[in-house]
Amino acid sequence: MPRRDTAFLFDLDGTLVDSVYQHVLAWKEALDREGVELSVWRIHRKIGMSGGLFANILLRETGLEINQDRLARLSQWHAEAFNRLHAQGSVRPLPGARELLDYLTAQDIPWAIATSGRMQTAAANLEALGVDPSKVPVVTRDQVRHAKPDPDLFLAAAARLGADIHQSLVIGDSVWDMLAAQRARALGVGVLSGGYGQAELQQSGAFRVYDDPADLLRHVDEVAARD
Amino acid sequence: MPRRDTAFLFDLDGTLVDSVYQHVLAWKEALDREGVELSVWRIHRKIGMSGGLFANILLRETGLEINQDRLARLSQWHAEAFNRLHAQGSVRPLPGARELLDYLTAQDIPWAIATSGRMQTAAANLEALGVDPSKVPVVTRDQVRHAKPDPDLFLAAAARLGADIHQSLVIGDSVWDMLAAQRARALGVGVLSGGYGQAELQQSGAFRVYDDPADLLRHVDEVAARD
Repeated sequence: MPRRDTAFLFDLDGTLVDSVYQHVLAWKEALDREGVELSVWRIHRKIGMSGGLFANILLRETGLEINQDRLARLSQWHAEAFNRLHAQGSVRPLPGARELLDYLTAQDIPWAIATSGRMQTAAANLEALGVDPSKVPVVTRDQVRHAKPDPDLFLAAAARLGADIHQSLVIGDSVWDMLAAQRARALGVGVLSGGYGQAELQQSGAFRVYDDPADLLRHVDEVAARD
Repeated sequence: MPRRDTAFLFDLDGTLVDSVYQHVLAWKEALDREGVELSVWRIHRKIGMSGGLFANILLRETGLEINQDRLARLSQWHAEAFNRLHAQGSVRPLPGARELLDYLTAQDIPWAIATSGRMQTAAANLEALGVDPSKVPVVTRDQVRHAKPDPDLFLAAAARLGADIHQSLVIGDSVWDMLAAQRARALGVGVLSGGYGQAELQQSGAFRVYDDPADLLRHVDEVAARD
């Protein structure tokens, strides 16, 4: 019987790159420009969904009309604000992120990245991480019909690796990653580096929770057997 | 036997004013300028302590030398960055904050504000909230020896009201408020508006947790008896 390899399917923002808080304040700026008053923590709690779904839900919860013009403006303003924060150099890989990916590569453990963001904002993050999307499987929002908490992004990432989703780990920082992992019948591994509480991740199905990629790398034997 | 009134002792940032995420990124900017690399979520998890204690702990955890020059620079850079974000108009009272304070005033329930910040950064927040510190008891970091998680700020606030701390509620968004409440033998009431998880607040002693001041006002009978 062949050894069944565990594939690692990573979320990007808050999981490999320290970018969640910048996304939060970029959405706050976009919503303020649109005249939508929303507390910052409520924005934080929705981050990690796709931008479109996220904006839809926020508008629905605030009782505002959802139309394509408004969604397009919000998305554009968010991207402008985020890329401005990024250009200031405050967005960096999380501790251990590059080392974890290097370790998996060296061990011949398949891995891929699946992000709810579009390539428009993901490109700068991938560059900071030293990941070349022409060489590594990276699935973005542009490539699937439904984003998280639908499981499509992780299913597509497993398919790109030729891996069985039922043998895969989904590593993510948000409740939406953990819900998508459950819906895909993968196993969710949470990281605290997106700023959510440990219990929030466990309650949404995380099988194990680590501080950040460095902490996961130190404990990788707990979640994936090595030879 | 006279009716023993419950006094409300409020934290400010994240509890009455929607300013935690701006403080987080302001500290991130200050630490970057000082060459201290720290993930944003780790900064978030320390916010709510006094600035000095906070910087001390961060420097100790990152193994850097703690000296007065460095602390003074960090404090100055944080205040600059925060006041710049504030001037952009993104910092506002949380939903229900003014209404909750007005309600307590109308009901003759004593209330005060106790913040780990110094008046240098608190002044703008109090103004946004419509609170005049010459009329309302406001205790800042400048006025006590030890800040949160030491209980001094809340003890001083109760003393200013002539209230018994054992009959007081401490309303705060952070673990440090809840720990300080326990150390003062007050009762801690958590709000999620600072971006911490409900379980984090409960595990640090919150007697009850609400979304934000508006949610607390809707359920105020649960924590303080009315006539």
